[in-house]
Amino acid sequence: MDLVKREISNTLFFQLKTVEEILETVEGLDAPADEAEVSLADAPGRVLARDLISPEALPGFARSSMDGFAVRARDTFGATESLPALLEIAGDVAMGTDARCRIGPGQAARIATGGMLPEGADAVVMVEYAQVLDDRTVELSRAVSPLENVIGPEDDVRKGDTVLAAGTRLRPRELGVLAGLGVERVSVLRVPVVAVVSTGDEIVPVDRKPRPGQVRDINGHTLCAFCTRLGAEALGLGIVPDRFDRLRERLVEGLDRADSVWISGGSSVGTRDLTVQVLESIDGMEILAHGVSISPGKPTILARRHRSTVWGLPGHAASALVVAEVLLGPFLRRIGGERPGTLPPYGAVEAELGRNIESAPGRDDFIRVRLIGKDGRLVADPLFGKSGLISPLARADGLVRVGRFTEGLYQGERVTVRLFVA
Amino acid sequence: MDLVKREISNTLFFQLKTVEEILETVEGLDAPADEAEVSLADAPGRVLARDLISPEALPGFARSSMDGFAVRARDTFGATESLPALLEIAGDVAMGTDARCRIGPGQAARIATGGMLPEGADAVVMVEYAQVLDDRTVELSRAVSPLENVIGPEDDVRKGDTVLAAGTRLRPRELGVLAGLGVERVSVLRVPVVAVVSTGDEIVPVDRKPRPGQVRDINGHTLCAFCTRLGAEALGLGIVPDRFDRLRERLVEGLDRADSVWISGGSSVGTRDLTVQVLESIDGMEILAHGVSISPGKPTILARRHRSTVWGLPGHAASALVVAEVLLGPFLRRIGGERPGTLPPYGAVEAELGRNIESAPGRDDFIRVRLIGKDGRLVADPLFGKSGLISPLARADGLVRVGRFTEGLYQGERVTVRLFVA
Repeated sequence: MDLVKREISNTLFFQLKTVEEILETVEGLDAPADEAEVSLADAPGRVLARDLISPEALPGFARSSMDGFAVRARDTFGATESLPALLEIAGDVAMGTDARCRIGPGQAARIATGGMLPEGADAVVMVEYAQVLDDRTVELSRAVSPLENVIGPEDDVRKGDTVLAAGTRLRPRELGVLAGLGVERVSVLRVPVVAVVSTGDEIVPVDRKPRPGQVRDINGHTLCAFCTRLGAEALGLGIVPDRFDRLRERLVEGLDRADSVWISGGSSVGTRDLTVQVLESIDGMEILAHGVSISPGKPTILARRHRSTVWGLPGHAASALVVAEVLLGPFLRRIGGERPGTLPPYGAVEAELGRNIESAPGRDDFIRVRLIGKDGRLVADPLFGKSGLISPLARADGLVRVGRFTEGLYQGERVTVRLFVA
Repeated sequence: MDLVKREISNTLFFQLKTVEEILETVEGLDAPADEAEVSLADAPGRVLARDLISPEALPGFARSSMDGFAVRARDTFGATESLPALLEIAGDVAMGTDARCRIGPGQAARIATGGMLPEGADAVVMVEYAQVLDDRTVELSRAVSPLENVIGPEDDVRKGDTVLAAGTRLRPRELGVLAGLGVERVSVLRVPVVAVVSTGDEIVPVDRKPRPGQVRDINGHTLCAFCTRLGAEALGLGIVPDRFDRLRERLVEGLDRADSVWISGGSSVGTRDLTVQVLESIDGMEILAHGVSISPGKPTILARRHRSTVWGLPGHAASALVVAEVLLGPFLRRIGGERPGTLPPYGAVEAELGRNIESAPGRDDFIRVRLIGKDGRLVADPLFGKSGLISPLARADGLVRVGRFTEGLYQGERVTVRLFVA
């Protein structure tokens, strides 16, 4: 009897997908291909739809990269502190104008960083090595080689260069590149839309006073906020009771209006089965995972129909958020069209583990920790406790992963703390 | 002569403020105290204006934290696999309803996670240890102690508890706490407004084709995007030429309309002095720092007038962004009213340094690095090169700090890479 039980549980165990398998499946999903053109002001955080090919060369003219004197390099050859070169000051290069002065042999022109190199000059001597003797004469105590302290007309960007690749998420710095190239409007991918549904006979809207036995809808709010903070659009589809027809109806609405539907709830075994039954009742719906070897978050479901993806998430708020951080973050980046890079899809800090953590092998445990400063060190203090509580939600700063081949981590070990989406 | 030069440069050096001094000054600045009430949907990323005191106890009723059977603990005492307890099934607790059944001695009731404990019960036996023999009888193979697998009516939050402190930036998880407590609208601090001004005779708007010697305004775009991505409001005040009256006029406008004015530009020595002259011409303006021992970013200026703060930033886009990451990020958090926590104000990853970095002692060097995956390790590859270029902006993923008491870092060393604001 007990043996049979264990065998069944082993079988179920091997049906669970690992976190890596789920992430691999996620990487294979399609991104919405629709593009929109936005202005630079609306571009921060959006994802480039196409490679950005430079329409021109930058800077487009030879610029000085230092404050100093524009010279013909050969006129400085051999110059030292004890044997400086004496040059005639032919003029000043005004910022932002075509350098009108032209320098000939034995001449120099005052120039500021970013100034346009005058005709005849091929290098710049830094102001630190220049001593102005009188209105017409400057003494240079250092030789420069041709092109020294000069940015050539195509040194920054050549016309036709691929400056940013399709799939790049535009940070402030990428906007700088666009601005520098005069790209005022840019083609970005459509922001993916996620429909969020909370299920459970016990769930009531936040504005309703729960009766005994009822609780307010938390996941509807946390999951919508999670989406918007990661650049997706959230479509709150409210609460449905644990009834096949009602859940099916809402799921169909979500599939119709969004790229992905997130159904959270089913704290009881029966409801979890309900979500699967509803999914199975929909033509063309393929269940990719039913159960993930992750704790918390084991009952997670992943299904796909055409280009739409459905996630079934745990009903408990803290568990749903762990699944969000570990699986839905990468998922949102993927369906947002972001090119996978070397950057991890989360911020992290290294800290010292504050207490031993035990963990069952065979699953990835994600332990919530609170970061505490202690004598200048950062300590990650694991938060344990009953799993039904919501108040500890806000006490945690991030997650420590205990991999499925590990039985635990020791106090004092260096661990990586994945910071929660802010 | 050379000795004198060195003495002057030493004097100037000691006038520079360190990064820590600037950050300390920043911590002492005031945050805008004005509050606004927003709905939960508009609250993500905002900062709580007041402590959130719980208006009620949660869950408000005794809940089961497991799927199983609600029992009187004493009825299970001594139960084991070989000597199970036999209880009468008195009924089912339906989710979301007041548990109507009442259990007496020797009775149990089916209950799901989150279900309300029926009267008479004081513990829950997990379904794994329950074997239903027939409609009316369940066999329990494990004893439970009173309150085991039960969340008491006040276990999560007591009425009057301070659940979230003023100054908390609301992440998805804090929204969950608010939703759970039925807080539909919440008092948050006003978002700080930053006016961004670009100076320089050579700067033209992005929509204008630069003539030889001119370049497009990059900082206006990168700094505005930096503000908005960190939750502040950016007010682009455009470009002013290097003229005292024009810069002063624009600064006064910025002080009038914003909490902080960021003036970038002055790639040449003359312009840097201009910003200081303009600041000094304004009544009540106190210059807190003129020069910071940071590279790049040394010419950074910090000034204050009443509750307004003015930053003078380098004109070069890459340098301005380093100052933004290191100093303006913490500044925006501070004037946003965020409570300083143990969390570092940036995401980071640990990596292996790809090349030796040399650094001058006496200043904090921030080296741009690109992260590269190599045989499963993350390598931080320093990006060097001429400082006037904009195309490398987008190649970097973050910064490695070489502290001012360090002369360099070795290839292969573990370093912390601060990830850029995305």
